[in-house]
Amino acid sequence: MNNLKIVFTIGIVSLSTLFVACNSMKVGMDNQRGNEPAFPKGNKITNNNFVGTAWITMMVTDSVYNTSIGTVTFEPGARTNWHKHPGGQILLITDGQGYYQEKGKPAQLLKKGDVVEIRPMIEHWHGATPQKTLIHIAVGTNTVKGSVVWLQQVSNDEYLRATMTTPKNPTTNN
Amino acid sequence: MNNLKIVFTIGIVSLSTLFVACNSMKVGMDNQRGNEPAFPKGNKITNNNFVGTAWITMMVTDSVYNTSIGTVTFEPGARTNWHKHPGGQILLITDGQGYYQEKGKPAQLLKKGDVVEIRPMIEHWHGATPQKTLIHIAVGTNTVKGSVVWLQQVSNDEYLRATMTTPKNPTTNN
Repeated sequence: MNNLKIVFTIGIVSLSTLFVACNSMKVGMDNQRGNEPAFPKGNKITNNNFVGTAWITMMVTDSVYNTSIGTVTFEPGARTNWHKHPGGQILLITDGQGYYQEKGKPAQLLKKGDVVEIRPMIEHWHGATPQKTLIHIAVGTNTVKGSVVWLQQVSNDEYLRATMTTPKNPTTNN
Repeated sequence: MNNLKIVFTIGIVSLSTLFVACNSMKVGMDNQRGNEPAFPKGNKITNNNFVGTAWITMMVTDSVYNTSIGTVTFEPGARTNWHKHPGGQILLITDGQGYYQEKGKPAQLLKKGDVVEIRPMIEHWHGATPQKTLIHIAVGTNTVKGSVVWLQQVSNDEYLRATMTTPKNPTTNN
C-alpha cells in the first residue's frame, strides 16, 4: 500500500509537470514564431457592399503605382456583394478558407497560398466559408481605369450553393 | 532501496512521456496552425543580380494586370544588387528581418508587416539581415513602363554600414 501511495503521488506530480511544461512551451513557441497575421486586421467595414463582418487595412493607395493594395479579413459567413473591377484584381490568400465565384460558373474553394486572377469587368464575389475566417491581400490593378463597380448582394441561396461545390481551383497557382 | 528503485523507474518513464508528448504536441500545432509561409519558396535565383542565396516564386505575370507579383526569400546575408524599376515597386514584408536602402539615404530595418513603397526609377536594394531570413511579396507596378534596370552589387562595405543603422522606418505603414 505504501508503494502504491508513492506511485500515485509521483504520477500526479509528473502529470502536473507535463501540463505546466507543455503549456510553457506552447506560449514560448507562439511568441517566437509570430503566428499572428503579417498585416493588421484594420477597420471594420461598415458600408453595404458586404454581407456579414469583414475588416480592411489599406496598405497602398498612392496613384503613382496605378495599384491599390489592402488586406481583407472575412469572418465566417462574410462575403462581398457581386462586383467588378475596370482594371482587374488579384487576390493572394494568406490564411483561412473561403470562396471565389465568377457569374455563371461554380464557386471555387480558396485556401492559404492560392492566387486568384480576376480579369477586368468580370462579375464576381469572394468571402469566407461558413466555418472559417478568410484573410487575403487584394491587389487592385490598373486603378487608373476606374473604381470597383458594386452590384447586388450574394443571396443566401447563392452562398448556400457555393458551400456545396468544392472543385479543384482551376484559376489559382496551387 | 526498493522504494528508491520504483521512484527512479517512474521518474525515467515520466520524463520520457513528457518528451514524447511535448514533441507530438509541437508537430500537431505546426500542422494545425499552418506556420509555414503562405506562398512557396520557389526556385533558387541563379543570376548575378543577387549576392548570397535567394529564392523566388512568381505568382502573377499576365500583362493584362500591368503588374507582376512574386514572393522572394532571402537567406541571412543575401541581398539584391542596386537596381531601379521604371514603373515602381511595392514590398510587403511577410516574415523575418531585412534592410531597404535608397541611394544616398541610410538603410531602413524591415520587419514582418512593413510595407515599402519604391517610386519609379529610385535606385535601391533590399535583402536580409546577417542573422535572419527575409520574406517579402514584391509587387512590380506599371510594368508596361519597362523591366527592372540592374546595377552594381551592394558591396560588403555598404552592407556592413546598413547593419549599423536601424532607424525607425519612415516609408512603411508600421
